[in-house]
Amino acid sequence: MAGSERILCPALPGRIMSADEAASLIPNGANVGMSGFTGAGYPKAVPQALARRIRALHERGEKYRIGVWTGASTAPELDGALAEADGVELRLPYQSDPTCRRRINAGEMEYIDIHLSHVAQFVWFGFLGHLDVAVVEVSGVLEDGRLIPSSSVGNNKTWLEQADRVILEVNGWQSERLEGMHDIWYGASRPPRRQPIPILAPGDRIGEPYLRCPPEKVIAVVETHAPDRNSAFTPPGGDSRRIAGHILEFLEHEVGRGRLPPELLPLQSGVGNIANAVLAGLGEGPFENLTAYTEVLQDGMLDLIRCGRLETASATAFSLGPEALADLNANLERYRGHIILRPQETSNHPEVIRRLGVIAMNGLIEADIYGNVNSTHVMGTRIMNGIGGSGDFARNAYLSIFMTPSTAKGGAISAIVPMVSHVDHTEHDVQVIVTEQGLADLRGLSPKQRARLVIENCAHPDYRPALRDYYRRALDGAPGRHTPHLLEEAFGWHLRYGRDGHM
Amino acid sequence: MAGSERILCPALPGRIMSADEAASLIPNGANVGMSGFTGAGYPKAVPQALARRIRALHERGEKYRIGVWTGASTAPELDGALAEADGVELRLPYQSDPTCRRRINAGEMEYIDIHLSHVAQFVWFGFLGHLDVAVVEVSGVLEDGRLIPSSSVGNNKTWLEQADRVILEVNGWQSERLEGMHDIWYGASRPPRRQPIPILAPGDRIGEPYLRCPPEKVIAVVETHAPDRNSAFTPPGGDSRRIAGHILEFLEHEVGRGRLPPELLPLQSGVGNIANAVLAGLGEGPFENLTAYTEVLQDGMLDLIRCGRLETASATAFSLGPEALADLNANLERYRGHIILRPQETSNHPEVIRRLGVIAMNGLIEADIYGNVNSTHVMGTRIMNGIGGSGDFARNAYLSIFMTPSTAKGGAISAIVPMVSHVDHTEHDVQVIVTEQGLADLRGLSPKQRARLVIENCAHPDYRPALRDYYRRALDGAPGRHTPHLLEEAFGWHLRYGRDGHM
Ligand SMILES: CC(C)(COP(=O)(O)OP(=O)(O)OC[C@H]1O[C@@H](n2cnc3c(N)ncnc32)[C@H](O)[C@@H]1OP(=O)(O)O)[C@@H](O)C(=O)NCCC(=O)NCCS
Ligand SMILES: CC(C)(COP(=O)(O)OP(=O)(O)OC[C@H]1O[C@@H](n2cnc3c(N)ncnc32)[C@H](O)[C@@H]1OP(=O)(O)O)[C@@H](O)C(=O)NCCC(=O)NCCS
Repeated sequence: MAGSERILCPALPGRIMSADEAASLIPNGANVGMSGFTGAGYPKAVPQALARRIRALHERGEKYRIGVWTGASTAPELDGALAEADGVELRLPYQSDPTCRRRINAGEMEYIDIHLSHVAQFVWFGFLGHLDVAVVEVSGVLEDGRLIPSSSVGNNKTWLEQADRVILEVNGWQSERLEGMHDIWYGASRPPRRQPIPILAPGDRIGEPYLRCPPEKVIAVVETHAPDRNSAFTPPGGDSRRIAGHILEFLEHEVGRGRLPPELLPLQSGVGNIANAVLAGLGEGPFENLTAYTEVLQDGMLDLIRCGRLETASATAFSLGPEALADLNANLERYRGHIILRPQETSNHPEVIRRLGVIAMNGLIEADIYGNVNSTHVMGTRIMNGIGGSGDFARNAYLSIFMTPSTAKGGAISAIVPMVSHVDHTEHDVQVIVTEQGLADLRGLSPKQRARLVIENCAHPDYRPALRDYYRRALDGAPGRHTPHLLEEAFGWHLRYGRDGHM
Repeated sequence: MAGSERILCPALPGRIMSADEAASLIPNGANVGMSGFTGAGYPKAVPQALARRIRALHERGEKYRIGVWTGASTAPELDGALAEADGVELRLPYQSDPTCRRRINAGEMEYIDIHLSHVAQFVWFGFLGHLDVAVVEVSGVLEDGRLIPSSSVGNNKTWLEQADRVILEVNGWQSERLEGMHDIWYGASRPPRRQPIPILAPGDRIGEPYLRCPPEKVIAVVETHAPDRNSAFTPPGGDSRRIAGHILEFLEHEVGRGRLPPELLPLQSGVGNIANAVLAGLGEGPFENLTAYTEVLQDGMLDLIRCGRLETASATAFSLGPEALADLNANLERYRGHIILRPQETSNHPEVIRRLGVIAMNGLIEADIYGNVNSTHVMGTRIMNGIGGSGDFARNAYLSIFMTPSTAKGGAISAIVPMVSHVDHTEHDVQVIVTEQGLADLRGLSPKQRARLVIENCAHPDYRPALRDYYRRALDGAPGRHTPHLLEEAFGWHLRYGRDGHM
């Protein structure tokens, strides 16, 4: 079907234009809310056209930079293109693009890393400034102007509502069968008039399948026919299989102790290769009738649906490798009934996560012996991606699990360190840490009890003696023995890596 | 009225005994859930009797230690007595007693510092082990065995429900007019069967005024007539007045910008002298028809009710100095209609805090230039009190404000440091930092933008040059410029204090 057949609203065909024309409508200094969440549903044409325009302006010596707000990370055609053109003054709330990351870490671009559940409401509250333009990919427009969302929802509801002007990309590549899969809740309001969110189970539909947008706000419609682009997951290797194995064993143990029902509780699985591998592991485990209340649907989630293990998955976006994406689009009719896509303010809402009792499984960069987790900063200063939704889930989960290989960079870095060089999840929010070495169940343990378990169960054997040594000396020499540390050498491992290339 | 007139349940008078007899029913190694929240409603007699018993046992060379679970901090008669007798193996979830603190920091007692909203559910989930005995102060017992709570609710509902055996202290000193002020919600259950908490405004009553307790569980009833004991707040000094002034000005500004309604949003005010002083400041400000959805009701809250500024206050406990306490008990009829006391799982519930849009105001020990906050650990290793409810409120608040004098120990310590030595509230959860020097509004700012504001607005002028110098050199020399740090000297200020007695 040609793109224009997807635009049924009579007011809009007159506003169809090229991406270059649309990009020219975005003024310098604007805050622009773009669709897109982990490589799904981001605008494919306007950001690239804008990047071309920015290059041309910069070549002529003119200033041009914008603020880019999204759902989460996007793809090279958005974050990569705009960062390469040096067109981004400020980026929020999450990114994972190499060029973007390089510029942020070079101090050339400001970045605000925000809990994903906070973003929409911060905009409603007026905390992030004014939103000038929304650039949102949709898969179609109804007669009355309502929009059929595409492969992610993210913050689109908020961008469409708050922006002065709206640019739509209607992507003919997106499956028409996406229609009806979304659930957009318009019941949210600002305090003091907020109501409970009436979700009692992951599959509950509480809203409508379309995004609202007053047609008079739409200043441009751009037709595209371009695929979502996500890099492939690395196939689960030995380490991630072992991590998955430890988690499966732990979950079975919890079911055995009556602390989890046999069908578990709704799963959340973070971004990254390890998280995807754990889902693969669940497909081989004993669990049936699973549900998911999560942020993204990775390859592993789709596998679980296909093999009949996962009944219902609620998320805000797909996050699929190329093969899984092809499978989804070819067989959407089969998957449809099992999947709901919601705004990220709902998918990540503390109220719902806590009520449902989600089992949260997220990746980490480093954890320390007392159970504090760094998810964002390499060696304390360089941002990797951002906290994303990991805080929304970890803090409010029934079980908060963090996982990582015990070493990085071929063993030169220990993921278990004396003290993390940046904290995203405090000791209060981390219940279980898992590496290929084993699992540390930190529930109900004091810091010192945690330290022994994290060192013996999670650290790589090559690093255990030095961790034991640090802990023992800290226990002897620290001014306080609640959380014993030797501040003079707490970052010694990071500094050694910087100097010698290994910890 | 004599204590026994307060015990109407026919099954119970036969179980009245002395505190010593009751204490003898608590076995070695037991986990004991005690009432008590910041010096209100804790058992006055049994813990002291137990401490005597423990001393005697220890003198005879016998082992005896228990796990002590409470609502939050208690008083010398509980935490002090048991810690002095070395009778506590493990303490949770919050304490502020000098002896207790000393033992924890000497490594003689295990302590688990838990978000106060997490405690009850961790017990229901079976994450903290089995609860053997509950020792709960009440102000009376009804004919059918239901209990009239006393001056705090805390985790009493959970202790009474989960413990095998219950010891009641019926305290004749507590005002009879407390009856009817409490609101105990029995609608909570374990996932996957949880329902929304139907609170839409701070004053909503959703439960019943009594605690349930099967009389057959009650193994002892002890009659007491002893006052709650809280130390007096220090009268607001210049620094705390200035902090209050900055916050008032900020709130007025937010009302002016339309980001807050004229009657503000429900207030939460943390423990400590500064928080109390800010409430005093609100009494002198322009705001009317205030509400509070908070954890404790301090002197300042009572003042606000008395002067007609505060309409409704919901909390889990009183936390009053001696004079305010006398005023409350003498004039309870006047205060009653304005106050609701709830279980702490409700007073601190993320769902409700976020829905109501609470303005959270909490104290801190140190903050760093990037906006991370340490509320618990002095110099990174010595626990002060614990995180308490500050995380429940800060993470879910409409506005999350942290406040502190800019220096401690007569100026020898800067409360603003290059890097905090422990993190309780990450950069993602801290929106406003206030000292007597000024206020830093960190909303919508990147780490580097925050650093400039925190240094210039909040740090003491004596420490500003050194902070600017650190920041500038970090910006030049750090491997990453998202959050520039020099790990080799990030804790240099703390180490200098340890060495030289000043930062
Ligand atoms: C933490 C996170 C980066 C891990 O990602 P992952 O793909 O599971 O893990 P990997 O082991 O493949 O590591 C990713 C990269 O970080 C590097 N890394 C991991 N640990 C490291 C450490 N301690 N020090 C330095 N680099 C490290 C790896 O070497 C790898 O780098 P490369 O791509 O250059 O090879 C990722 O989970 C993340 O961004 N989390 C934060 C957001 C989040 O949790 N969202 C979930 C809610 S949906
Ligand atoms: C952080 C906290 C200790 C501050 O308490 P406060 O009474 O407002 O503040 P004060 O300035 O009086 O400081 C209390 C003590 O900490 C010391 N202190 C404060 N900052 C310090 C620092 N940076 N380094 C060392 N000591 C410090 C003070 O000197 C004082 O010690 P003293 O009693 O020996 O004189 C307190 O707010 C707290 O425990 N917070 C965590 C729990 C919480 O926030 N609960 C709120 C939800 S109800």
